[in-house]
Amino acid sequence: MIAEGDLILLYRDSKRNYLIRVAKEDKFHTDRGYINTRDIVGKEFGSLLRTNLGDVFYILKPTLYELMMKVNRNTQIIYPKDLGIILTKATVYPGAKVIEVGMGSGAFTSAMAYFIRPDGKIYSYERRADLFNNALKNIRKNGLERYVEARQKEITDSFEETDVDFIMVDIGSPWVLVDAAYKALKPGHRMASICPTFEQLTQTVFTLEEKGFTNIETLEVLVRRILVRPNKTRPEQQIPSHTGFLVFASKITKD
Amino acid sequence: MIAEGDLILLYRDSKRNYLIRVAKEDKFHTDRGYINTRDIVGKEFGSLLRTNLGDVFYILKPTLYELMMKVNRNTQIIYPKDLGIILTKATVYPGAKVIEVGMGSGAFTSAMAYFIRPDGKIYSYERRADLFNNALKNIRKNGLERYVEARQKEITDSFEETDVDFIMVDIGSPWVLVDAAYKALKPGHRMASICPTFEQLTQTVFTLEEKGFTNIETLEVLVRRILVRPNKTRPEQQIPSHTGFLVFASKITKD
Amino acid sequence: MIAEGDLILLYRDSKRNYLIRVAKEDKFHTDRGYINTRDIVGKEFGSLLRTNLGDVFYILKPTLYELMMKVNRNTQIIYPKDLGIILTKATVYPGAKVIEVGMGSGAFTSAMAYFIRPDGKIYSYERRADLFNNALKNIRKNGLERYVEARQKEITDSFEETDVDFIMVDIGSPWVLVDAAYKALKPGHRMASICPTFEQLTQTVFTLEEKGFTNIETLEVLVRRILVRPNKTRPEQQIPSHTGFLVFASKITKD
Amino acid sequence: MIAEGDLILLYRDSKRNYLIRVAKEDKFHTDRGYINTRDIVGKEFGSLLRTNLGDVFYILKPTLYELMMKVNRNTQIIYPKDLGIILTKATVYPGAKVIEVGMGSGAFTSAMAYFIRPDGKIYSYERRADLFNNALKNIRKNGLERYVEARQKEITDSFEETDVDFIMVDIGSPWVLVDAAYKALKPGHRMASICPTFEQLTQTVFTLEEKGFTNIETLEVLVRRILVRPNKTRPEQQIPSHTGFLVFASKITKD
Repeated sequence: MIAEGDLILLYRDSKRNYLIRVAKEDKFHTDRGYINTRDIVGKEFGSLLRTNLGDVFYILKPTLYELMMKVNRNTQIIYPKDLGIILTKATVYPGAKVIEVGMGSGAFTSAMAYFIRPDGKIYSYERRADLFNNALKNIRKNGLERYVEARQKEITDSFEETDVDFIMVDIGSPWVLVDAAYKALKPGHRMASICPTFEQLTQTVFTLEEKGFTNIETLEVLVRRILVRPNKTRPEQQIPSHTGFLVFASKITKD
Repeated sequence: MIAEGDLILLYRDSKRNYLIRVAKEDKFHTDRGYINTRDIVGKEFGSLLRTNLGDVFYILKPTLYELMMKVNRNTQIIYPKDLGIILTKATVYPGAKVIEVGMGSGAFTSAMAYFIRPDGKIYSYERRADLFNNALKNIRKNGLERYVEARQKEITDSFEETDVDFIMVDIGSPWVLVDAAYKALKPGHRMASICPTFEQLTQTVFTLEEKGFTNIETLEVLVRRILVRPNKTRPEQQIPSHTGFLVFASKITKD
Repeated sequence: MIAEGDLILLYRDSKRNYLIRVAKEDKFHTDRGYINTRDIVGKEFGSLLRTNLGDVFYILKPTLYELMMKVNRNTQIIYPKDLGIILTKATVYPGAKVIEVGMGSGAFTSAMAYFIRPDGKIYSYERRADLFNNALKNIRKNGLERYVEARQKEITDSFEETDVDFIMVDIGSPWVLVDAAYKALKPGHRMASICPTFEQLTQTVFTLEEKGFTNIETLEVLVRRILVRPNKTRPEQQIPSHTGFLVFASKITKD
Repeated sequence: MIAEGDLILLYRDSKRNYLIRVAKEDKFHTDRGYINTRDIVGKEFGSLLRTNLGDVFYILKPTLYELMMKVNRNTQIIYPKDLGIILTKATVYPGAKVIEVGMGSGAFTSAMAYFIRPDGKIYSYERRADLFNNALKNIRKNGLERYVEARQKEITDSFEETDVDFIMVDIGSPWVLVDAAYKALKPGHRMASICPTFEQLTQTVFTLEEKGFTNIETLEVLVRRILVRPNKTRPEQQIPSHTGFLVFASKITKD
């Protein structure tokens, strides 16, 4: 049974779906009429709701995808397609200790927090106050703040943490943090970065090679939706074709 | 410090890297000479090792990618690229209760077990004895057996479990299990399937539409490696271009 | 030297470029001011022009790409990316005799006319008067009308032509014209079709297999631009990911 | 009716198909038995042939695709997928005068010759004797030698030709020929290059920008086959994902 404060996905169709926290006194407005959110309390997931205009919505269990995509964005976010491959290539798991630099809008922070629960922790650094505050708000909306230790701070030299399992660097010059990441990371564990341009990519990779990393790998991910409809099944006509190149590298012990 | 029984990635380069469990008495043979695995005990991750021929390997922390890709395969597996997007689109998280039908080689089972730890459980069904036994062996090698309840059994009507968070159906005719999945799934939660062909895809989607699911989405994932080398950076020349179409759907309550 | 009536590309940047026929009395308006087209007469290709507001444009030689993309469209056109692969997979060359069904906006007609010059001919069929007239206008603007014999007519049974080198069928139900195409085509030569959906594709292929064709091949083409800029080189962020599936088939002699 | 000396495609399936010139006295051996090529003379395209073992082949009209792909290769060739888009983006047409540098195996030379017939000419430069001789042999096998003027020569400063419609530069350092290309090209017309790596790409583009070119565009092309079979339709599982980045640029007049 859904209680006040729960996070739900209010779903009508692929365009009209909303991630909301249930509150007793609210009206939630859509372009198909409004819903009294007190009507949600006590319902179970999967239930049908009607707007005041009679339009049908469903109460669905949100997935990580919505937690990432529905953040209030004031930056480019790391997309679920990229996060997905990171989850398989990073040294990250329930209980992991993770550093992230460049919180952006908190989409990646939310994703890490989601999967290191309940015993892990994500240490998140963001230099800019406006981004920091917005990211925190998004993480709180997602209900994941207890897994995040966020710091509004520019890192130049070293992180406060050591022996972390994984480090994600999402800033314009990832190579400047390779030394700091090396120091903070457990040996044999990985750091990653996302580079929108080739020049960022090559400089990052060459720096990693110089500074004690091996097993360096770069890849990009494309996702294409297929629209399945009776006698009209086809791929969607327009897709995002580039977000960034993902770089992964494993720290080795220097002698 | 690495102890006997630990799982490590013995890494030389992108071609020569091996997922092994450390045992005191073993020799591990590579095409560059062998390594005495007793030399690994007491080392830390990130350390350099030499084969009897002097070739250099590193001891790295394995990631989910290796747990999936290094299983002993006697079937097509679900690939990390597809698993990654599933992790973002499925109702799965630490603590989740998950059903999987069609264990194949246990790659997907391992991935689910990896991320539902420590409190979740994956209930895995496989009809064929040979696949079942091989999958179990792979899951044990990955050290994830305590999170898996595996059953060699063909499901026709219904699963033993109810109120599960997520169901993955990876069999040739996914549509025959839509009713069973509906019954076992928590309302508002999701099932997924992977369909290699268009005909499987459309029949699965149309069945889901009929039988109480909404928010049905299909997509495919492409991953391309970039080879970064001084003055020779380029995408790899050959990529896997198709594994299967991923279908996701949310159960709604029937009235 | 450019003369009245010549076709030129007036180019400023990737957004602002115009395919125009030079006429003595015209003003050509852009969002950066206008150009007196009489100023173009007597210039050579490659010359710089200024608008009345001082903005710089260049006079460039148009390519087939612009002849296709700058048609006045009232339908989906066949895109240059698809046309390109057709040119390599079709039995088409200077001097060829080609049938096209479904003129659409005349983009494909223009492309065929462009490459079968000076001795070939394209026989183009279009059922709808509005499309037919618009397509003809586009072909005339492109200066290619002498290579085209256009007929506003619905084909059901057979074409007027026989012994043609290549047939392109671009209609919603390509399979209904397989018999007619078989009769019109030289043996051993090819027909092609473009199918936006899977259902069209499979029905077309299965019909071709039944009705005397072999060497049947289906493919799709993706093109991605790379934006090359100092320290900011990256792929474009959004691409067209689907136009249609291209089908090719070779007629064999029935005994 | 097929005569001695004609070029045909002997087709069995997508793996077993051969581009051959018909000669009276030959046996053509396949892994399904041999065919007496004198049996081909007098047949028409589309006819069925049997090997001595009774296996069925068809005589099909070759397309440009086979002329390119079936050359005897001792280099990487320009692939049909890339040639196709070049045909739409280049200033090339029946009657055009084209320069090509880096003949490779003659695949691109053949393609240009194919489409500039009957009045055009392609001037082809190749530095290495072994490549030059092999390319010439391939062009002759394709029956296109009369449209090609080939020169075994390294270009450093300038080409012998001027006022050419299009120049293709396919060498390791395309930027060293930008000046020579500028001089040889008609103003307003285009040159193109294919760059396997990002570093080649960026250096080429920046050189073009400096040396009198505008309308510079880079793109890459991906082609994926779809295997259409009853109840088993799916994309092929492995595709070539990178050949090179194509660069196009239009010469402008310097003042």
